[in-house]
Amino acid sequence: MQKLIKDLIQKNNTKILLIVLDGLGGLPVNGKTELEIANKPNLDALAKKSACGLHIPVAMGITPGSGPGHLSLFGYDPVEWQIGRGVLEALGLGIELKKTDIAIRVNYATIENGIVKDRRAGRIPTNESRKITERLQKKIKKIDNVEIIFRPGMEHRFAAVLRFPKPLPKGSASIKDTDPQKEGKRPVPVTSETPQAEKVAKVVEKLISSILDIIKNEPAANFILLRGFSQVPDIPHFEEVYGLKPLCIAIYPMYRGLARLIGMNAPTLKGDIREEIDFLKKNYADYDFFFLHVKKIDSYAEDGNFKGKALKIGEFDSALPEILNLNPDVLIITGDHSTPSVLKSHSWHPVPVLLNSPYVLGNTSKAFSERECLKGEFSIFPTVNLMPLALANAGRLKKFGA
Amino acid sequence: MQKLIKDLIQKNNTKILLIVLDGLGGLPVNGKTELEIANKPNLDALAKKSACGLHIPVAMGITPGSGPGHLSLFGYDPVEWQIGRGVLEALGLGIELKKTDIAIRVNYATIENGIVKDRRAGRIPTNESRKITERLQKKIKKIDNVEIIFRPGMEHRFAAVLRFPKPLPKGSASIKDTDPQKEGKRPVPVTSETPQAEKVAKVVEKLISSILDIIKNEPAANFILLRGFSQVPDIPHFEEVYGLKPLCIAIYPMYRGLARLIGMNAPTLKGDIREEIDFLKKNYADYDFFFLHVKKIDSYAEDGNFKGKALKIGEFDSALPEILNLNPDVLIITGDHSTPSVLKSHSWHPVPVLLNSPYVLGNTSKAFSERECLKGEFSIFPTVNLMPLALANAGRLKKFGA
Repeated sequence: MQKLIKDLIQKNNTKILLIVLDGLGGLPVNGKTELEIANKPNLDALAKKSACGLHIPVAMGITPGSGPGHLSLFGYDPVEWQIGRGVLEALGLGIELKKTDIAIRVNYATIENGIVKDRRAGRIPTNESRKITERLQKKIKKIDNVEIIFRPGMEHRFAAVLRFPKPLPKGSASIKDTDPQKEGKRPVPVTSETPQAEKVAKVVEKLISSILDIIKNEPAANFILLRGFSQVPDIPHFEEVYGLKPLCIAIYPMYRGLARLIGMNAPTLKGDIREEIDFLKKNYADYDFFFLHVKKIDSYAEDGNFKGKALKIGEFDSALPEILNLNPDVLIITGDHSTPSVLKSHSWHPVPVLLNSPYVLGNTSKAFSERECLKGEFSIFPTVNLMPLALANAGRLKKFGA
Repeated sequence: MQKLIKDLIQKNNTKILLIVLDGLGGLPVNGKTELEIANKPNLDALAKKSACGLHIPVAMGITPGSGPGHLSLFGYDPVEWQIGRGVLEALGLGIELKKTDIAIRVNYATIENGIVKDRRAGRIPTNESRKITERLQKKIKKIDNVEIIFRPGMEHRFAAVLRFPKPLPKGSASIKDTDPQKEGKRPVPVTSETPQAEKVAKVVEKLISSILDIIKNEPAANFILLRGFSQVPDIPHFEEVYGLKPLCIAIYPMYRGLARLIGMNAPTLKGDIREEIDFLKKNYADYDFFFLHVKKIDSYAEDGNFKGKALKIGEFDSALPEILNLNPDVLIITGDHSTPSVLKSHSWHPVPVLLNSPYVLGNTSKAFSERECLKGEFSIFPTVNLMPLALANAGRLKKFGA
C-alpha cells in the first residue's frame, strides 16, 4: 500500500493535523462509554460534519501495543514493521537511538549460588536502582570500540544501548534473552541465534562481566537479566514516503522516539496539552504534517478511572476550538488503540476516528463516540488506510491509472 | 493470521461456546426473512446486549460449502485449506479418516461396449446400491497391503477409502477423475498427475478391476466412476493453534468429521438439540471450547420451507435459556453459511452473528436478524476473524508489540 501511495504523491501547501488521544476507545459502564458520558460539545459538533468511523490497528481481536498502534496510524503495516522490545524500552526512557545501536531491556535480579532467586531484585525501589545505574554509567563508557549508554527505568528496570561505530548487518540483534523466565533456574548464557549476532554477543558478554564486577556485592540487585535485544528497524522515512514535512508534538519520550524512528522531527517538550498547543501554533508555518499526542486519557483508563478518563476527554474538548482556529486542511482526531477503563489495559476494540475536510459527506454520526462512529461514512477499516485518506482529503494524491 | 495468533495465546480458565445454526442467514419473502418472522424473544434479547455483525466465510459473492464454512469459523483460511471431495464424502458417511488414507467418491454407473451409458446407473435406489456396496466390502478387504473401506451412500453414490500402512507424500492423491462427465464417452483411464500418485494409481487400478469382477453382471450398476481422490490435509490442530481443548457436539457425521480433521474430540451422538444440550452440560467442565452444531434449520431451508426454517429457529430459541444458564465467558451464535429458503441452497450472503461477553459495546442491534446485525459493532467481516475475537473476549490473547 505504501509503495502504491508513494508513486501517487503530489505536493501542495495543505496542512494535515493528526491528533492522537491515546487509548481513546472505551466500553460501557451502566450502558454508556467514557466518550458517551464525556462533556464534549465541540467534538460532537465536529463529528457531525466530519467523516467518522472506527479503525482496527492490527487485526480484529488483536490488542495493539503503542508501537504497532502508532505505526498503523502513520500508515506502516505493524506486522511487517515490528519494533523490538529493547528499542521501545530505550525510546520510552528517552534515548535517541541511531542506526548503529543495539538496544536491550535489562532487569536487576538477585542471584544465589548461580541460581536466579528473584528476577526483579525484590522490585528494588526506583530511587535505589537509579543510583546503581548511574554508577554503572560512570564506570562503563565503552566496551572495545562500542559506546555503552545506560538509562534508569522504574524499579528493577533499565535500558542499555550498545552504540557500534558502524551500522550492523540485519540479524545482529538475534540474541536469546538471558532471563530464564522463572525463579530457581540458572540464567541463560548469552547465545547468538545468527552468525551476524556473534560479534554483538561477544560485546554483551564483556558488558555483563563488567557490570557484575560493579554490582556483585549489592544486597538485592547483584545480577542482571537481559531481554529484547533489538536493532532500529530500517524503516522508510515518513517524509520520503508521503512528501510531507512532519512534526511530532508529544510530552512522553516513547512517542517522540517512535516518531523519530520514521524520521519525524520530534523536539523535547515538557508540560501538557496547553504547551502542546502553543508549540503547534509556534511551528504551524514550518511543517505540513503534525502528529499531536495527548497521553492523559489513556493513563486514567489504565488506572480503571472511568470518570477520570471522561473528564480528560472533556478537557481536550475545551482546547479544541483553539486548534480549530488554525484551520488545518485535514484534521483527524482519533486514538492509537482503545483502553476501556473496565479492562484497565489496551484492548482489541476498534478506535473511533473523525476526519474533517471540505470533502466529506458528513451528517452520518450525531456525536463522537464508539456507537455513533459505527454509523459513519468510514465504517470499520484498517488503521493503515487512514494516511491515504488524509492525503486524499488534502489533495495530495494523484489519480491511479488513466 | 493464525501464526500471529499462536504467538499471542495465553491460557486461562474461560469457556468459549460456538453455536452453529447451519444455514442461518436468509432472504425475505413478503419483505421479511426467516429470522425476521421467527418467534425468538431470547435471541433478540441476547442480540441487544451482544456484539453483532455479519461474516463472510470465503469472499463476497462466494457460496461456501460446509467444509469451507466451518473451517472459516474455526479460524482456518478456507482457500488455503481446501478439503478434497473424497475426504468430505467419506467424512459425511461417517468414516473416521486417518493421515494414511486416500478417500474417493464413487458412482455406480452403467456401461455398454466400453461406453458409459448412464453415469448414475439409473439413480439406482439406495437400498439396492447399499446391498452391492456391502457385498463389495465382504469380498474386498485388502489390495496388496492397503486396507480398503467402503461406505454406502445415497442412490448411486458410495465412498471408498484406501488406507495405506504409512503416511503418503503430498501429491499422492493427484489422480484424474475417471468420470468422463458425459454419457456416450469412454471412462477416463486411471491417470496419475504427479510421480507421487503413481503408487496410489496402481492400487486404484487393481481395486477397480476387483470391483468390476464382482459387479459386471449387475443389470444397471455394472461399472464404477471414481472422483475427488484426496488426502486428509496436514492441517494444524485446533488445540495446538489456540491452546483450547475443544469438544464437537454434532449429530451429523460430516460435521464431526470436519471437527476431527482439526483434532477436535467429536464423540458420536444421536438425537436432536435436546441430546446436544444434555451432552454439552455433561461435558462442560472438561473442555475450554465447545462447537455445537444445529442442523435442522439448514435442512428446512434446503427444502425451500420458509416457515419451517423459521419454526426451527424458534425451537432453538426456546432451548437458549438453558444454554445461557451455563454462563459461558464467550458465547457466539451464528451459521456456517446462509441458506435462503427461496434459493433452496447454500448462498453467498453474509451470515448473522452475535458474540456475547462482558467486553462488548452492545445496544447497536435491536434483534437477531440480517438487517439488525448490519448495524452491529462488528459490521461485515471475514469469518476467519471470529476466532481471534472469541479469544480476545475470553482474555486469551496477549498484547501485540509493546
